[in-house]
Amino acid sequence: MRLLTRTDLADLAYGAALLGTGGGGSPWIGRLAAEAWLDQGGEIRMITPDELAPDALVVTVAMVGAPTIMTEKLFRGDEMTEALALLERLNGRPVAAILPVEVGGMNSTIPLVAAGKLGLPVVDADGMARAFPEVQMVSFGIAGVPAAPMVLVNEHGDHALLQSEDNPRVEAMARAICVALGGVVHAASYSMSGADVQAHAIPGTMSLAIALGAARRQARATGSDPFASVLAALAAGGVHGTSVVLARGRITDLDRSERDGFTLGRATITTAGHCEVVLEFRNENLLAKTGEQVLAIVPDLISVLDTETADPIPTEELRYGQRVTLLGIGAPSVFLTPRALGVVGPAGFGLELPHSPLSPLT
Amino acid sequence: MRLLTRTDLADLAYGAALLGTGGGGSPWIGRLAAEAWLDQGGEIRMITPDELAPDALVVTVAMVGAPTIMTEKLFRGDEMTEALALLERLNGRPVAAILPVEVGGMNSTIPLVAAGKLGLPVVDADGMARAFPEVQMVSFGIAGVPAAPMVLVNEHGDHALLQSEDNPRVEAMARAICVALGGVVHAASYSMSGADVQAHAIPGTMSLAIALGAARRQARATGSDPFASVLAALAAGGVHGTSVVLARGRITDLDRSERDGFTLGRATITTAGHCEVVLEFRNENLLAKTGEQVLAIVPDLISVLDTETADPIPTEELRYGQRVTLLGIGAPSVFLTPRALGVVGPAGFGLELPHSPLSPLT
Repeated sequence: MRLLTRTDLADLAYGAALLGTGGGGSPWIGRLAAEAWLDQGGEIRMITPDELAPDALVVTVAMVGAPTIMTEKLFRGDEMTEALALLERLNGRPVAAILPVEVGGMNSTIPLVAAGKLGLPVVDADGMARAFPEVQMVSFGIAGVPAAPMVLVNEHGDHALLQSEDNPRVEAMARAICVALGGVVHAASYSMSGADVQAHAIPGTMSLAIALGAARRQARATGSDPFASVLAALAAGGVHGTSVVLARGRITDLDRSERDGFTLGRATITTAGHCEVVLEFRNENLLAKTGEQVLAIVPDLISVLDTETADPIPTEELRYGQRVTLLGIGAPSVFLTPRALGVVGPAGFGLELPHSPLSPLT
Repeated sequence: MRLLTRTDLADLAYGAALLGTGGGGSPWIGRLAAEAWLDQGGEIRMITPDELAPDALVVTVAMVGAPTIMTEKLFRGDEMTEALALLERLNGRPVAAILPVEVGGMNSTIPLVAAGKLGLPVVDADGMARAFPEVQMVSFGIAGVPAAPMVLVNEHGDHALLQSEDNPRVEAMARAICVALGGVVHAASYSMSGADVQAHAIPGTMSLAIALGAARRQARATGSDPFASVLAALAAGGVHGTSVVLARGRITDLDRSERDGFTLGRATITTAGHCEVVLEFRNENLLAKTGEQVLAIVPDLISVLDTETADPIPTEELRYGQRVTLLGIGAPSVFLTPRALGVVGPAGFGLELPHSPLSPLT
């Protein structure tokens, strides 16, 4: 068991933004709420999957909706209390721990506050080792764990309990409820046993995100190369495949639109060697290519960092003229099976390309 | 207690189409399923509100969605079993009877099959005495009965339990789930006590719909005027205000579109005296006027009948050249309070006109 500190929260916010691969919403709101909780004398406990009893009830909590609306809505952290009580009644036993659904983006920090206020530990694991946009895009979902029962609540206490054996239909219902309730809802789903978490969640992702932030912080303090530090922390984490700098350059073209809560578009990055890399995104960065050569493609992670500061840049904050470094991070092996690629690979995002390994610009 | 016969079902289908005021979906599918149930030896029992114990649990069942999609989907009649079981658990007592939410359109006959197969009686009452498009547009909702908990199910057994203190938000969630689940869902809602039904439902509406069908059937058999018979049955029913023929003529102009599951538009009816009556509809007929003179406006009922046969014509089946008779039927007095008019009056449909009494063309 580890007690998270304010420094951990700041480090986590950095790592979560990087693993957000351009999307997933800002970890900022959750971080602020978590800091306020610590300031009140609250605790946030993190445990490893091994610390769970095999029959312990573990559920995921997350916010669903358009990140841009999120920042305008108040987040208290106790919105999930009633939703979790409902899942406890349905499962016939108390919730023992909270599992983050995704360590990338806002849903890395949101569960900390809910867990802290409920006196529950957070599990050092998640279902994505990054951010993905849909409910079914998690390792445990791909392994056959049903997302339902899912409980959605909004700030008025309105709630919906969704039941379906089909995770994509749960996703469709959740998205619809989210829009009907004003754009953002809190969701609790994926009731699992401790044994399920041990078998199907991706372990160590929360501590990896914290380690990424720490690596960048220490590089800053010592004046060393933050990219080298971050790459070393990724390698040490052992969660992902190989990580590499894919390309470096300046944003010379940007075509982006906001539609149905999605940030869609493409950016062209021109390198010092006059090579043009095209980055395609739909909330998250999905594809980087030069000509017909694919440098990286989902489910591998593509993170755009400020070349100066190594700050992650979300897709909605890409700007013409920015100097950026594209980091490619290999997906965890659990996402490279044919079954997984059908859900979180190119086909899951409507891309008519096969998955291919990271191939940095040479 | 009354056992419904095949003749009652045919008569009900006619009355329900007339009280559908152009919308509400066709009573046909529910009628077929109810007839099949009787053919198998099943019973359909109808009781008056007075026959309910004051503490009996009564719930409404209905189909929600686009009527055009409905006809393409199979309807079995037992879709509600699990949904009702869930409402029973939430209410802590068994359902004693099923209340139709609306006697106009498809939801007049749908509950008969569900009730029959569950061995429950149907109450001779509803919340609209016609068809209205939204969850909150019922007498008991206006009186303060919450629509939630509402359970929605589809043909795959997917379901959603909705909770909100605000009936329009329940409507918004239900509509969203309906679209996410393929366009049509079965809904159970408005958990009431027998005393609630006696105080806030509109009694006698199912038997009135049956009486309307019987009146037309008998007029046909005897060669007498079906319009006179129907008007007499409406008067005898005592459910509505005064009923009159508003206008007679031929459809000389028709402007109609299908959007988001709504049939929207207007028809012009030119009378023998060259007077033009404009009928505006959004699924249901909402307004009939000539120049600036309002002949009828919601919540009063406007039914378009074939002048030859007295068959009700739904808005999606209006045709250029049809000879039609516009019937105006006064709304039940419960819908004429300021509070009710805010929900089911012109304002509830975005019409910037006050409610005014029926005013037939002279």
